[in-house]
Amino acid sequence: PAAAASADSASGQVNGLKVHTEGKVSRIEINRPAKLNSITWEMYEGIIEALKKAGEDKSTSVTVFTGTGEYFSSGNDLSNFAKISSPADVAKLAALGKDVLKRYVAAFIDHPKPLIALVNGPAIGISVTVLGMFDLVLASDKATFVTPFAALGQSPEGCSSFTFPMIMGTPKAAEFLLFGKKLSAKEACDRNLVNEVFPDGVFRAETEKRITAYSLLPPQSLQLSKGLLRSMLKDELHKCNEREVTLLAERWQSQECANAIQNFFKRK
Amino acid sequence: PAAAASADSASGQVNGLKVHTEGKVSRIEINRPAKLNSITWEMYEGIIEALKKAGEDKSTSVTVFTGTGEYFSSGNDLSNFAKISSPADVAKLAALGKDVLKRYVAAFIDHPKPLIALVNGPAIGISVTVLGMFDLVLASDKATFVTPFAALGQSPEGCSSFTFPMIMGTPKAAEFLLFGKKLSAKEACDRNLVNEVFPDGVFRAETEKRITAYSLLPPQSLQLSKGLLRSMLKDELHKCNEREVTLLAERWQSQECANAIQNFFKRK
Amino acid sequence: PAAAASADSASGQVNGLKVHTEGKVSRIEINRPAKLNSITWEMYEGIIEALKKAGEDKSTSVTVFTGTGEYFSSGNDLSNFAKISSPADVAKLAALGKDVLKRYVAAFIDHPKPLIALVNGPAIGISVTVLGMFDLVLASDKATFVTPFAALGQSPEGCSSFTFPMIMGTPKAAEFLLFGKKLSAKEACDRNLVNEVFPDGVFRAETEKRITAYSLLPPQSLQLSKGLLRSMLKDELHKCNEREVTLLAERWQSQECANAIQNFFKRK
Repeated sequence: PAAAASADSASGQVNGLKVHTEGKVSRIEINRPAKLNSITWEMYEGIIEALKKAGEDKSTSVTVFTGTGEYFSSGNDLSNFAKISSPADVAKLAALGKDVLKRYVAAFIDHPKPLIALVNGPAIGISVTVLGMFDLVLASDKATFVTPFAALGQSPEGCSSFTFPMIMGTPKAAEFLLFGKKLSAKEACDRNLVNEVFPDGVFRAETEKRITAYSLLPPQSLQLSKGLLRSMLKDELHKCNEREVTLLAERWQSQECANAIQNFFKRK
Repeated sequence: PAAAASADSASGQVNGLKVHTEGKVSRIEINRPAKLNSITWEMYEGIIEALKKAGEDKSTSVTVFTGTGEYFSSGNDLSNFAKISSPADVAKLAALGKDVLKRYVAAFIDHPKPLIALVNGPAIGISVTVLGMFDLVLASDKATFVTPFAALGQSPEGCSSFTFPMIMGTPKAAEFLLFGKKLSAKEACDRNLVNEVFPDGVFRAETEKRITAYSLLPPQSLQLSKGLLRSMLKDELHKCNEREVTLLAERWQSQECANAIQNFFKRK
Repeated sequence: PAAAASADSASGQVNGLKVHTEGKVSRIEINRPAKLNSITWEMYEGIIEALKKAGEDKSTSVTVFTGTGEYFSSGNDLSNFAKISSPADVAKLAALGKDVLKRYVAAFIDHPKPLIALVNGPAIGISVTVLGMFDLVLASDKATFVTPFAALGQSPEGCSSFTFPMIMGTPKAAEFLLFGKKLSAKEACDRNLVNEVFPDGVFRAETEKRITAYSLLPPQSLQLSKGLLRSMLKDELHKCNEREVTLLAERWQSQECANAIQNFFKRK
């Protein structure tokens, strides 16, 4: 259909993304396996655009988000921060990053259709934190989940400081977001961040069955019911997003963060 | 005692319900096993009345809700919608249904005593969604839980769009409420919707032991402590109830819902 | 360092407490094993002071709370209520208790650093309820968790009426806080109140490894990220604290509570 084709041609131009529709399903795939599907500024913009188009596409009823290759996504590409040479650069980059991240997370908050994540492998940082805004998270048993914010001198985003305490209770959310505990797919499922775990060999086949079945449900019921589940939370999520990116922009300009990122690149 | 007798005679007249008191326990049983304990308009009114009387009964300290026969309750009796012959009928029935459901759910929100559900068998739709307002949910291992709202072109009620994300996190709540995933008693327990699962053969005997013990606790402490746990939620629950029944009344008048219910009766 | 020493000498004077710092860790230990680590009015004040100092200590990044001996803490020392001889005494004691408890719970709400609980053995009443405000709860497999409020004619405190429904969903929170169900460490972990359970023999060694690693993370990131996770909850928690201690002060003056505590001392 026309809508699908236009989404394809518009977003297909972004390096590292594969956006298309299949039946009743809009699909957004992070496709930068050589860089472990880390997300560049350009890719953030491409995903924002793809989520918007998927939300408006009258031919589809659900939106699927996944990665190609071994990783789901290693999160924010730290080379986004690599070209810094002066304090003025840092301030400029922090302002840019804050703006991009805020709009990125808002695109998930405001997405009107059920959001389904297929976590095909390791997920890091912002590719983990946004999962709290999904309506279904299916994981391969090769998936792992980690948010090493503190180790990098940073702070949580993706509305995780709001959604994770709600999903797994504050003690387990804090262990994950503050102390950076890495979770297996099974552990993430026990903590309600993941709905179901599949052996990697049958992951794609089994999840497709579910997605196809769900995408054939009455689309207005799906969309309106999703709106109902989120209605009381939407304002809170936007406020949380603002708080998170404000703190993160401050963190990016802190000495603690600079030291931590430098150490990261040294270890690499 | 007088209160118990009057509750008995007042509510005993409603077909499909059995209301009585036993020791310190008010009991409301859905008793329409030939129709899988589905709930007619008249039964909704009977339960509202029974909950009110149980709340006021000075001889009891807890309120137990269960079903007779094999089902807990198959939810809203779809024949409530079967006598429609014109668009005007639909609008009238939607207004009636909205009013009844809203008062039904409010009766659970406002119930002052600990509410205990004995889920003796399959639970469907509104008999599942109200469980989020209970203080103890004990289930037989023959119990199952399903809310096929989307498949019927409808939307969640019973405050489940508020309570379920709080109980099991949004991804698992959305899978259940949007996509209609059916849960076993064990799965419902893992998701914190059920407190404890019992082999069916000992279900009634084991749950009675617990209920008797709990009903002998100091009644004011129970009631005031329950009020405390709900105090911050009560306003939110009433707002949620209003949002849910408003959307549901719209859904009942939609073409999508008409088609879905027609298909349901065809399959029967 | 100076801060550590001053914390030591200031709080070391309180009977039943051991307060010190070790590396990057502030430690508060309930040290009254002969009385199962129950908490006297004086100890409440000592812990409030120790939490304040730990929050201000620039040499530490996390605060650890634990018990010495077999118990974590058996909660409020009921002999706090034993010297009552007239109704005027009851009113005076209720006012005192309300004030102390409110400031005690507020000290946890406002603590700026990650709070880690090492639950080395049985935990009762207020030593359980405050756990919902911790960022990491590690338990020995000898730990148990119980809040016998109703049996004592009392009502929940420690913000548990807010945090526990969020952590484990209302049905499981109500079973625990209203009906006094006792949980094993494993059950508390399944309900997200405990992060991880360790065999008692390796409990101290294994938890020290984690605490040391976490305490070496960038301290500002830890503190600011914790603030972010709590920012939306802080006001709610203070309001909840006020509601809880107000009800509790009423309960302490009720006949139901007097009878229940009398029965408790008789059984002893």
